[in-house]
Amino acid sequence: MEEILELLEKKRLHELREALVALNPVDVAGFLNEVGKDELLLIFRLLPKDFAAAVFTYLGEDLHLILAESISNQEINDLISRLFLDDAVDFLEELPANMVNGILAHADPAKRAAINAALRYPDYSAGSLMTIEFVYLFETMTAAEALAHIRKRGTDRETIYTCYVTSPQRILTGAVSLRRILLSKDDTLISDLMTTPVIAVHTHDDQEEVAEKFREYDLIAMPVIDNEERIVGIITIDDIVDVIVAENTEDIEKMAALHPSESEYLKTNIWRLARNRIFWLLFLMISATLTGIVINRYQELLKTMVMLAAFIPMLMDTGGNCGSQASTLIIRGMAVGEIELANWLKVVWKELRVSIVVGLVLASVNFLRIMLFVKDSCLRMNIVVTVTLFITIVFAKLIGCLLPMVAKRMRLDPALMASPMLTTIVDVVALTIYFSIASLLFGL
Amino acid sequence: MEEILELLEKKRLHELREALVALNPVDVAGFLNEVGKDELLLIFRLLPKDFAAAVFTYLGEDLHLILAESISNQEINDLISRLFLDDAVDFLEELPANMVNGILAHADPAKRAAINAALRYPDYSAGSLMTIEFVYLFETMTAAEALAHIRKRGTDRETIYTCYVTSPQRILTGAVSLRRILLSKDDTLISDLMTTPVIAVHTHDDQEEVAEKFREYDLIAMPVIDNEERIVGIITIDDIVDVIVAENTEDIEKMAALHPSESEYLKTNIWRLARNRIFWLLFLMISATLTGIVINRYQELLKTMVMLAAFIPMLMDTGGNCGSQASTLIIRGMAVGEIELANWLKVVWKELRVSIVVGLVLASVNFLRIMLFVKDSCLRMNIVVTVTLFITIVFAKLIGCLLPMVAKRMRLDPALMASPMLTTIVDVVALTIYFSIASLLFGL
Repeated sequence: MEEILELLEKKRLHELREALVALNPVDVAGFLNEVGKDELLLIFRLLPKDFAAAVFTYLGEDLHLILAESISNQEINDLISRLFLDDAVDFLEELPANMVNGILAHADPAKRAAINAALRYPDYSAGSLMTIEFVYLFETMTAAEALAHIRKRGTDRETIYTCYVTSPQRILTGAVSLRRILLSKDDTLISDLMTTPVIAVHTHDDQEEVAEKFREYDLIAMPVIDNEERIVGIITIDDIVDVIVAENTEDIEKMAALHPSESEYLKTNIWRLARNRIFWLLFLMISATLTGIVINRYQELLKTMVMLAAFIPMLMDTGGNCGSQASTLIIRGMAVGEIELANWLKVVWKELRVSIVVGLVLASVNFLRIMLFVKDSCLRMNIVVTVTLFITIVFAKLIGCLLPMVAKRMRLDPALMASPMLTTIVDVVALTIYFSIASLLFGL
Repeated sequence: MEEILELLEKKRLHELREALVALNPVDVAGFLNEVGKDELLLIFRLLPKDFAAAVFTYLGEDLHLILAESISNQEINDLISRLFLDDAVDFLEELPANMVNGILAHADPAKRAAINAALRYPDYSAGSLMTIEFVYLFETMTAAEALAHIRKRGTDRETIYTCYVTSPQRILTGAVSLRRILLSKDDTLISDLMTTPVIAVHTHDDQEEVAEKFREYDLIAMPVIDNEERIVGIITIDDIVDVIVAENTEDIEKMAALHPSESEYLKTNIWRLARNRIFWLLFLMISATLTGIVINRYQELLKTMVMLAAFIPMLMDTGGNCGSQASTLIIRGMAVGEIELANWLKVVWKELRVSIVVGLVLASVNFLRIMLFVKDSCLRMNIVVTVTLFITIVFAKLIGCLLPMVAKRMRLDPALMASPMLTTIVDVVALTIYFSIASLLFGL
């Protein structure tokens, strides 16, 4: 990298170009992230056009915008014509609408039509992920004919490793891997080589479902069909890996009471970061008022037994932790397809037993701890804390496993029901139990 | 599926076999999950052997064990010989050691040696993920020769879409895609087609690093090299998709104070589930004692101003939520490579500003809420709560972003530093600030 920086400084452009082309486009993109705007433009124009297009797909949104604003419409169109449709669409979606119109006005008509169609699919749908550059074959071809067809058409296709077999009306009838074609005798018919039925998705399917199918069937490409079962595009595994990571990030963020965001942390300004956090914080802060109300109702009790206050944080935290353990397991289990809603009774029965085991262990340890280490504690106080702890744990685990399933049943995102939301409910219940038992035992 | 169940019940085995073979092996595996042990064995033996091996790779650990115990060593060996090395090793790792020895004693020597070598790699290393069934080429071959070589050798290779070029000593010198070979003129030399340097991993690299490289470079296969730069195996994208999902699950579980586990929730017994939860719960319960100590120290103050207790849960929860928002963003950012340790100062500066914005908004809303809706509250009390809330938010966000980075610096897993651990620290600090300010303002 230092060598390249030196060539850049000394403006030895020819050598610079040679050095860059020898690198992986991903690494060149990484390098462009580090240089200034002028150098970015200089290098981008210096690179061979196809290589530049490959590098372009690995640049971030910010550099895309800089380039789009700096190069001519002519250059942009040339770039777009070298990108696969899915990458071109991703790029255009990042730009302001008026800029997109300007660019598309100059694009060649076929590409423009394809891009317009792709832009119309809902965000995060299979249609918005797919590319239309794929190879299709007919059942009546022989392996040799198919191979010749692939060699002729393959250059500008995103993948040639899985080919799709269609009827003359473009209805998807089968799939065949390049491997199978290559390893077969020349005169075998494609209809004998293809597998059927084909795992496919519809244009409007959600990307999460698409990713789930890729994972389940270990695929490297999948066809996308429209309502008439015609194949309209394919999705490749590299895009799915990104979807899986993005969907996981979204779940993790929701579980931590964050409004999910796709932009990189370091590149997001503080107002946006603050905005993504404030809604849930406000909501949770205000719902925590409920716990305040519970405590206020028992002011008299607290005044006489002020020691009760000392155990509030421990009860709340343990309840919260128990609940979020359960909800996390269920949310994740549903996300990776290990737990179905139909299993809800099994889950509850399991959590009930687990919570009793966990509750007994924790309550016993806590009982001993208070007996041995807490000065001024009487047995009655210890019993109040221990019984509350046990009940809270069982309650937290049950509500922790139920909430995400209820959310899913109501077609809400289960991840939203994770720890913070849960904590408020568990807090209120734990405190109510705590003070009720205390009132009872101390006869107040 | 109902049709298949009917065929099974009526023991129409020939038709059953036909019906099953027409399905995707993944779906047959799903079906086998639902039937009893006898049917499992019957169907498994009924299927053509290669198809049965494909189905086998999609069965869960529990069914693997049942099958391994029920079929003869001869059958197991035949099965293993049909599995790719990585799948065979995964299977053997699930079995008890004495069973593995029994099986390997009957395996053919070459396969045994390969399996033994693979079993020696550390868990979760590149070596344990790789398969040794790949195609390698030499630089001096022409495209036509390479294609002929691939067609001859490809049948039992896990992938033929990326081929690796080696020196006669097996030193990795380049990589070339089947696509490139196929689309080139017959007499082009492989040395002119291959790309170099090749993105590769070492046998002992951690699977998380491997997944990161796959993602960064959009690969579908990657070579694994030993210390002498010789290629010893390859890793394919389907296994990496599973690694990404498993690593994400592990992070999510750690963030919820769970001991990570690889077994499916519904298939894990309650003792194991309880064990995975108890350690952290005990640790956190006992560390929550610290908050109890803080409250105890201020018993006198609480007795006079019992209303102070009512705001404890709100302060604790808001602090905890603010902290876990920050830690989650940083943990996830580091996991997907968006945040580097070198950026720590930038992160802290960003969090400081965000926390001030968030703190001001929340504290203002809270001030108004107390003023308007909380009976018996005086201005002084309101000021105590509001100031504490603001300081707690800023502190929680700062410690929330620092802890995961400190963990990473100390080579601990940042995910362990997420919400629960953080909550205890934030609780203690929040309560100390709260009571200190209260003492000061009420002159007690």
